[in-house]
Amino acid sequence: MTIKISIDCMGGDHGPSVTIPAALSFLKQQPEAELILVGLEESLRAELKKHHADTNPRVTIKHASEVVEMDDPVEVALRRKKDSSMRVAVELVKDGTANVCVSAGNTGALMAVSRYVLKTMAGVDRPAICSILPNQKNGPTYMLDLGANVDCSPHHLHQFAIMGSVLFSAMEGVKKPTIGLLNVGTEEIKGNDVVKETALLLRADHERGSLNFHGNVEGNDIFKGTTDVVVCDGFVGNVTLKAIEGLSRYMKSVFKQSWLSMLGALIARGALKKLNPERYNGAGLLGLKGLVFKSHGGANAYAFEWAIKRAFDAAKYNVQEQLSAMIAELMPDTPDAQRQV
Amino acid sequence: MTIKISIDCMGGDHGPSVTIPAALSFLKQQPEAELILVGLEESLRAELKKHHADTNPRVTIKHASEVVEMDDPVEVALRRKKDSSMRVAVELVKDGTANVCVSAGNTGALMAVSRYVLKTMAGVDRPAICSILPNQKNGPTYMLDLGANVDCSPHHLHQFAIMGSVLFSAMEGVKKPTIGLLNVGTEEIKGNDVVKETALLLRADHERGSLNFHGNVEGNDIFKGTTDVVVCDGFVGNVTLKAIEGLSRYMKSVFKQSWLSMLGALIARGALKKLNPERYNGAGLLGLKGLVFKSHGGANAYAFEWAIKRAFDAAKYNVQEQLSAMIAELMPDTPDAQRQV
Repeated sequence: MTIKISIDCMGGDHGPSVTIPAALSFLKQQPEAELILVGLEESLRAELKKHHADTNPRVTIKHASEVVEMDDPVEVALRRKKDSSMRVAVELVKDGTANVCVSAGNTGALMAVSRYVLKTMAGVDRPAICSILPNQKNGPTYMLDLGANVDCSPHHLHQFAIMGSVLFSAMEGVKKPTIGLLNVGTEEIKGNDVVKETALLLRADHERGSLNFHGNVEGNDIFKGTTDVVVCDGFVGNVTLKAIEGLSRYMKSVFKQSWLSMLGALIARGALKKLNPERYNGAGLLGLKGLVFKSHGGANAYAFEWAIKRAFDAAKYNVQEQLSAMIAELMPDTPDAQRQV
Repeated sequence: MTIKISIDCMGGDHGPSVTIPAALSFLKQQPEAELILVGLEESLRAELKKHHADTNPRVTIKHASEVVEMDDPVEVALRRKKDSSMRVAVELVKDGTANVCVSAGNTGALMAVSRYVLKTMAGVDRPAICSILPNQKNGPTYMLDLGANVDCSPHHLHQFAIMGSVLFSAMEGVKKPTIGLLNVGTEEIKGNDVVKETALLLRADHERGSLNFHGNVEGNDIFKGTTDVVVCDGFVGNVTLKAIEGLSRYMKSVFKQSWLSMLGALIARGALKKLNPERYNGAGLLGLKGLVFKSHGGANAYAFEWAIKRAFDAAKYNVQEQLSAMIAELMPDTPDAQRQV
């Protein structure tokens, strides 16, 4: 079975000079993939030529005349740049030409455009962004929401848990992934009201066997790998993820301050590579009527290729269908009014 | 001027074997300090003897018959262990025997005992925990609240900003420290309602010249050192701090996985030392009628000594008096009812 991936080649800090080499490298590894490269045709063609790939039969170019810049406000992306590479790439998923889309464009714009073009999946109130982080057990920790929703009700967090569980299960081949609810302590009495009420909903799902709810987890459990999935609201998730990125960047800068520590870092590069966030690039926008993956804006070709791989896997393992089925099963009769809380 | 510090010597994961060597080392550096060591007299005396310090004229022992364990629930610390080293150490601040107290005991218990014994400062609704983190500018970032308050109103966050500003100013000798409000983006329109309303309060203070409000900051700004002080609610602060600690621990474990990476870490130890969280040990419990500092429970002697140093500095630079003055100036006529929101 062929998986078709639409790639917003203009997104991110580097555009085609990163996205196209990444796409071509991925294509070599994955014979089942076909790519639709979206962006300014001339730029794309030039970059493809550089890599002697302008006649690759598994590559199509789709021209889009505009580019959403990394600092463009959401409104500009949504209302003023209707022929942006980002939007056209998402539209290819909407009209069924592509199975999944990948963009390194700015997160707010990508989520807004995706919501507008694809609409939200039935039974889901708010799409969420699910990132993948490394952990001490050498496995991935899936964490959501990472910033799409700054005010969440227990019902929203409940849906995030379901979506995270489905994504982990499909991508990692684990039947009932463990779900942790991010909190300030592991005891049931800890936390604010939203978290406590969410725990009740998740525990009920656990008891009827539909979710594998572990209970509360704390910030350090993300990297311990205590649970497969960590659920939190977008405010907490966004701040935590950016703090982690900030710490990584800070450490790099400290290593660069002397030749001795650079030498040390060079020798320890095997270990440092393991910590390399590039391997964990590729966050899923879940809960839409179509699959969209988001790469870090600053991604290099290696990292962007990882985002494409994840998008491919998500399409191949039918994440979208599994999401619909699980949402329909776990929240079939929730009235709209209640869901909007 | 002599500063008297009461030390809960039984707190933390290691008790007297860490707290006493740390206390004695600090005492050698600081001729203006006197220490009251609180705990099981026999244990303390034995440990002091080991270090040939049982007759040091600047050391007093205060016996306390009970110990708050690291996993004791708050209720046990508060109601059942009334003669704990933690409580007695705090009581020494209350009755004026000590200028400041230091404990490595469990955070929840220490905050509860401190609130109960000392009471909250006039004009403050909720005490906060202020931690100190390293940043890329080689300065400290003060961040609060780190877990005392999981549900905060704009008014609470406003008070945290004032308290953080006073602490930074006194401890670091900076007249008007910059204040950042932790958010999911730097733009004014970003964030939830609580954060947006807090920004209005802080901006008003900025305009009248009483606080140096920088605006919104993001998670990565903590380590960039964009602002001197970062304000957030205790839920976000606790999760972020623990995630950071988790990442540090994860990295250490990765370094230990091969001799080559251990060698690299050894060579880069100068750089790694800079990142050493031990130097940043010592969080202030602010907004009480007395000064209390909290050390990390797992602190070694080097780290615990840092917590004692910070406590000493806070007392020496009159943090308590400055806090009262600033709170009185900035929220003199806030009616109680309004403050309880």
